[in-house]
Amino acid sequence: MGGSAPRVVALAGGVGGAKLAYGLAKTLPGPSLTVVGNTGDDETFFGLHVSPDLDTLMYTLAGVADPERGWGLAGESFQALEMLLSYQEPAWFSLGDRDLATHILRTKLLREGMSLTEVTRQLSQRLGVECLLVPMSDDPVRTIVETDEGALPFQSYFVERQCRPVVSGVCFEGAEKAQMSKEFTEALGKSDALVFCPSNPIVSIGPILAVPGTEKAIRSFQGPRIAVSPIIGDRALRGPAAKMLAELGEEVSCVGVARRLEGLCDILLIHKTDAPLAAAVKDAGMEPMALNTIMDTDGDKRRLAREICDLIKDRLQ
Amino acid sequence: MGGSAPRVVALAGGVGGAKLAYGLAKTLPGPSLTVVGNTGDDETFFGLHVSPDLDTLMYTLAGVADPERGWGLAGESFQALEMLLSYQEPAWFSLGDRDLATHILRTKLLREGMSLTEVTRQLSQRLGVECLLVPMSDDPVRTIVETDEGALPFQSYFVERQCRPVVSGVCFEGAEKAQMSKEFTEALGKSDALVFCPSNPIVSIGPILAVPGTEKAIRSFQGPRIAVSPIIGDRALRGPAAKMLAELGEEVSCVGVARRLEGLCDILLIHKTDAPLAAAVKDAGMEPMALNTIMDTDGDKRRLAREICDLIKDRLQ
Repeated sequence: MGGSAPRVVALAGGVGGAKLAYGLAKTLPGPSLTVVGNTGDDETFFGLHVSPDLDTLMYTLAGVADPERGWGLAGESFQALEMLLSYQEPAWFSLGDRDLATHILRTKLLREGMSLTEVTRQLSQRLGVECLLVPMSDDPVRTIVETDEGALPFQSYFVERQCRPVVSGVCFEGAEKAQMSKEFTEALGKSDALVFCPSNPIVSIGPILAVPGTEKAIRSFQGPRIAVSPIIGDRALRGPAAKMLAELGEEVSCVGVARRLEGLCDILLIHKTDAPLAAAVKDAGMEPMALNTIMDTDGDKRRLAREICDLIKDRLQ
Repeated sequence: MGGSAPRVVALAGGVGGAKLAYGLAKTLPGPSLTVVGNTGDDETFFGLHVSPDLDTLMYTLAGVADPERGWGLAGESFQALEMLLSYQEPAWFSLGDRDLATHILRTKLLREGMSLTEVTRQLSQRLGVECLLVPMSDDPVRTIVETDEGALPFQSYFVERQCRPVVSGVCFEGAEKAQMSKEFTEALGKSDALVFCPSNPIVSIGPILAVPGTEKAIRSFQGPRIAVSPIIGDRALRGPAAKMLAELGEEVSCVGVARRLEGLCDILLIHKTDAPLAAAVKDAGMEPMALNTIMDTDGDKRRLAREICDLIKDRLQ
């Protein structure tokens, strides 16, 4: 990428989103990139504030994530969790020993009165993250999945019940009272382009959009808005996106993703094997571009990020 | 030991005291024994309430303590601590991964409004401890060591500064406002005998005695009061007791220990090599008994506890 770098704001959930965020961070200079993380699946475990998506993003951006799992830290162990089991405590959520340091420190700083934005900035900077990583909001927003087994907080649905319950709806508790983080608002105001990372449109991008003011700011965003479809064919590369879309009666394809982002996004990057769906994506009001969107290796992540940055520069001219 | 078991209340600090507490727990039926732990060196690390002496007692009584160190848990690792170092946090206090589970759970329960007594009862019972382990008080008492480097909270003196500063005094912050735990008061009221475990007389037994009402209750205690000297010759088997006694201008021997317990104790068990000091112990107002007080093995701990229980039964007749 020649010339000056565009300023980009990227919206992301966990593992899938973190891959592209990593690519963007390797492509753009630190100050040009703001990554906005979903906090709808934040949860309190044993009094500790856990922010799964922010952590996945932070660890990935810092290069300390577990390369196999895509979440958590490399070289992780689970001794504290084992001891919690000795205390006969429920231990379905994988709290790693190294990971615990993050939750302990975050909880301490929050209790001391620091905002989640400031905590996230401090922790990510201390781990060497150069771009700005911010939560969508400093206020609590809680993704609740309505299922045939009742209403479940996201982590209970996702981790404890392993996405088995049938989903009939999703709501975001507290969203109506939440405010966008100042840094999110500012990033939307000053960035040249907006990127939707390939995250679950319902429970990763959904909570971000549920924060009042976000949709409006994105609708009036000046500059190219580009999404990468997390659905390829009729499957999500990971997570329950495909299963959730199907259970909610939506189309399980990049076209379903396009419909969810109608009015919020200009260009949808779809995987090359989905090229036959380009016309349907266009009908949903979005410009389709078919290319290789699979990010297995760090090289893949950088390649896709470079293609996106080139596209942005092209559209900005 | 034949016949019915005496009811015993034992006062203890950390490692040395825990050895005898373990022996007593193996000798007496659970309901007959109350172990009262020092909480003067409790400390808050990263927002977590750490009770080093209660933990050493609990782990030892539950048979899960590290056999080499005498404190902490067997099979411990320090991954969370390493990660805290990655966050550039001070990490001089050895928070083990398994140990963290205890601190996290205790802190959670305390924040939910449970008393330290109730938390300690719950955690120790869940680990299989059969006797009653109670803190001296539910109120915060903080041992402050006055030194040539200034006033240091006990853990800073003991762990961070490794007992190097020269001690000029010790005070117990908050003690004047603290109340004895109800269970401590009750145990003193209903027990047949009182045992001072071989713990540091200044910073382990000292804080217990500093809680208002404790000295008075012990002075009027009905039944044999027996202490085991933590000083053998002019040395403590572990910890800074000898160094502290010397720096405070007190005699570094079992006689110094006897003087500290004047009026509070009837019989002082001294190590057999200290038999020549028996007369001086007697002059300090205490009946000396010389025997093997060294507890290297679990067998040693049981043997000494059995001898103490036999002595109690003998005196109760």
